[in-house]
Amino acid sequence: MHTTIHEMLRANPRAADKAIPKLLSDCADTCSECELACNACADACLAEQQVASLRRAIRLNLDCADVCATTSRIISRVIEADSAAMAALLRACAAACAACASECEEHAPHHEHCRICAAVCRRCQQICELALHQHFSS
Amino acid sequence: MHTTIHEMLRANPRAADKAIPKLLSDCADTCSECELACNACADACLAEQQVASLRRAIRLNLDCADVCATTSRIISRVIEADSAAMAALLRACAAACAACASECEEHAPHHEHCRICAAVCRRCQQICELALHQHFSS
Amino acid sequence: MHTTIHEMLRANPRAADKAIPKLLSDCADTCSECELACNACADACLAEQQVASLRRAIRLNLDCADVCATTSRIISRVIEADSAAMAALLRACAAACAACASECEEHAPHHEHCRICAAVCRRCQQICELALHQHFSS
Amino acid sequence: MHTTIHEMLRANPRAADKAIPKLLSDCADTCSECELACNACADACLAEQQVASLRRAIRLNLDCADVCATTSRIISRVIEADSAAMAALLRACAAACAACASECEEHAPHHEHCRICAAVCRRCQQICELALHQHFSS
Repeated sequence: MHTTIHEMLRANPRAADKAIPKLLSDCADTCSECELACNACADACLAEQQVASLRRAIRLNLDCADVCATTSRIISRVIEADSAAMAALLRACAAACAACASECEEHAPHHEHCRICAAVCRRCQQICELALHQHFSS
Repeated sequence: MHTTIHEMLRANPRAADKAIPKLLSDCADTCSECELACNACADACLAEQQVASLRRAIRLNLDCADVCATTSRIISRVIEADSAAMAALLRACAAACAACASECEEHAPHHEHCRICAAVCRRCQQICELALHQHFSS
Repeated sequence: MHTTIHEMLRANPRAADKAIPKLLSDCADTCSECELACNACADACLAEQQVASLRRAIRLNLDCADVCATTSRIISRVIEADSAAMAALLRACAAACAACASECEEHAPHHEHCRICAAVCRRCQQICELALHQHFSS
Repeated sequence: MHTTIHEMLRANPRAADKAIPKLLSDCADTCSECELACNACADACLAEQQVASLRRAIRLNLDCADVCATTSRIISRVIEADSAAMAALLRACAAACAACASECEEHAPHHEHCRICAAVCRRCQQICELALHQHFSS
């Protein structure tokens, strides 16, 4: 994926004294992609004949989509973000992605949308963990 | 404030075996109120003559609004939420509320909107911390 | 419901020359309440034994929750909002509430959460239509 | 930009009888990109020395970001969306993008972030109008 968020963060007047690591703009992009994938996976699960066996997947999809949405927004204002809130949010996002990925992985053999969604969630979990360790751990 | 969220959570078919504590529906309500207050405070700060001195307040208002929005949504699906994600999110929400409250408190003597907003943020911080300790700490 | 949004809008420095009608802060509150009710109804529907017959209710609940969330946020910055966007959004919100209410009304005899949710959606539809006609129609 | 949303929509079990036009998944992607660009532009405007002259840009950025966020989410559940709500929302999104683009275009000669943001908003406006006319006009 290639969006304009990296360019935007570099155009911030504060970026001269405080460079925004590429990792953070990648993290915002991935969270945003994961949000859409999870929302679409919830909808595809709802449309499956065996919807009853996909209840937990749908719930975790919706939670993951919401946490990812907020994480990408907060990163887009990262230059003066509160680091305690940022760190806790990256932890919440990694945890929501991990929970959703684990559940979708179980359904991946039967449902292509769960397979794709699980892969996006794992990528998102990893980049959130990396961003947390490289930029927000004390 | 009194909304329908408590009634809704009690009407969940799972609520019979797993009662939703009133504290959690109150927390969802308070997060939702805090989201609106922070968005309105950001807008009021923007309209002030001394907007340049309110930059940090505006940023923290926006971050707090986003984290509160997601927290209230996740709580509305709390019955099967992933507890690690829920705990980290409540921590993120308490931290975002604390950061926003501290900043708005400094402007409270001059701006009524900052005074009201700081008070809502403190209430929201406290209920998130309480919900965290009573229901999601191991 | 009684939240701080009305107080906040009155504390905006622009409110002196441009009073924010109480109807608009009530509309923001109702949208916010409707967002939480719809998210909780989606979750309760998912937990029902007959989840397969509630697919459409769940989808419309989620759409309605998202449109209500954005409408309440935009109203919290109403003083300088673009009126074309505001009017179209109020129309979208009334339509999403109407669609969700119609569907939930069909399930209301069997599910208390659908009954409560439908009632909140109808109230939200009406206040959005009123706000549209009184403040944003040309 | 290339995300997984198109793949996800094709993997929906309903997609066999009701193909999701590529235009709609592109629209979801563009809305999502525009949301991040607008949030980052608001933050960069806030950091400019002449923040007072950028008040209107910041407000319209925030409104545009919120409407885009909801539009991309609703499209990710498009297969059974209510068409009246979908059409009104695409209209609201095109209007919010147009208002934000017009304002940012005025600041584009001085601020790179406004130039980039205006371009993304215009693209987003156009794809929303196209999606509206091709798929949701009666």
